Amino acid sequence: MKTIDDYIISIPDYPQKGVLFRDITSVIQHPDGLKLAIDEIEKLLEGVEYDAIVAPESRGFIFGTPVAYNNGKSLVLARKKGKLPRKTIMQEYDLEYGRAIIEIHADALKPGQKVVIIDDLMATGGTFEAIAKLVEKAGAEVVKIVALIELKGLKGRQKLEKYDVACVQAYEGK
Amino acid sequence: MKTIDDYIISIPDYPQKGVLFRDITSVIQHPDGLKLAIDEIEKLLEGVEYDAIVAPESRGFIFGTPVAYNNGKSLVLARKKGKLPRKTIMQEYDLEYGRAIIEIHADALKPGQKVVIIDDLMATGGTFEAIAKLVEKAGAEVVKIVALIELKGLKGRQKLEKYDVACVQAYEGK
Repeated sequence: MKTIDDYIISIPDYPQKGVLFRDITSVIQHPDGLKLAIDEIEKLLEGVEYDAIVAPESRGFIFGTPVAYNNGKSLVLARKKGKLPRKTIMQEYDLEYGRAIIEIHADALKPGQKVVIIDDLMATGGTFEAIAKLVEKAGAEVVKIVALIELKGLKGRQKLEKYDVACVQAYEGK
Repeated sequence: MKTIDDYIISIPDYPQKGVLFRDITSVIQHPDGLKLAIDEIEKLLEGVEYDAIVAPESRGFIFGTPVAYNNGKSLVLARKKGKLPRKTIMQEYDLEYGRAIIEIHADALKPGQKVVIIDDLMATGGTFEAIAKLVEKAGAEVVKIVALIELKGLKGRQKLEKYDVACVQAYEGK
């Protein structure tokens, strides 16, 4: 039985020195890897009641969309500033260097909806935290945060301790 | 029976004056809209034999991924320059103002593979044409090009006349 790790190609010093980049394109270009990734994410959601998936630009779209389709859920895109065409709500957050803004459409979530956030990677947890704040600004509730890959050395779970977090494949490093 | 048009919100003068922007986020944030979009794309692929789907950044990921998952196909990302971590092949193409470069990983397609390209929108056909050239550079074959939405006024079919092109929802204008 293969695991996600069997499909991941790890690239040293990318995008900068000292980072071991975990490439998910090598997972999804194998039909069995894509199937495993989506099925394992869905296993983490067994028994979770939710209405909508929020998926961040752009690799989050890859893992969020089939789960939304398979389970009959709403799919909401979280995008970088200026990419969504209608009225948005936005959240600023820290990057390693500087700050970024992430947005969702103002009408995308309804008060009281239960939301799962799905992305390819949990690193520092900064993007997930910003999206969780957006979900809460909309009056909805984050019931689970799911990533395909977790980089444990970056302590995302610490930043996200008030949420229920689950990842398919964890790595010790950064 | 609803159609994709029932779910699309059209935004006048976005992103610039004179353009009527067709927003797909309003399709996918309805579970029934997301299901209809994917199911209609799959209907256009009935009887087509193929090995891989190439989906361009970033809305192409939304429509390509569930189709690849549902049908056990390889999913290949076509991304803007510098976003893919391993060795790539690239293609330059014209935009309305200036030029752009799109890439796929050099190992993503194998010679002889049959490829479907899926994106949200066929406008001028420039992105599809550039990706088709990449597929052919890799020694693979484009067997079908599919978009959820076609803007007929931009004559993408003319640019792509050597390919088999199909769209779910066509609009007369630009």
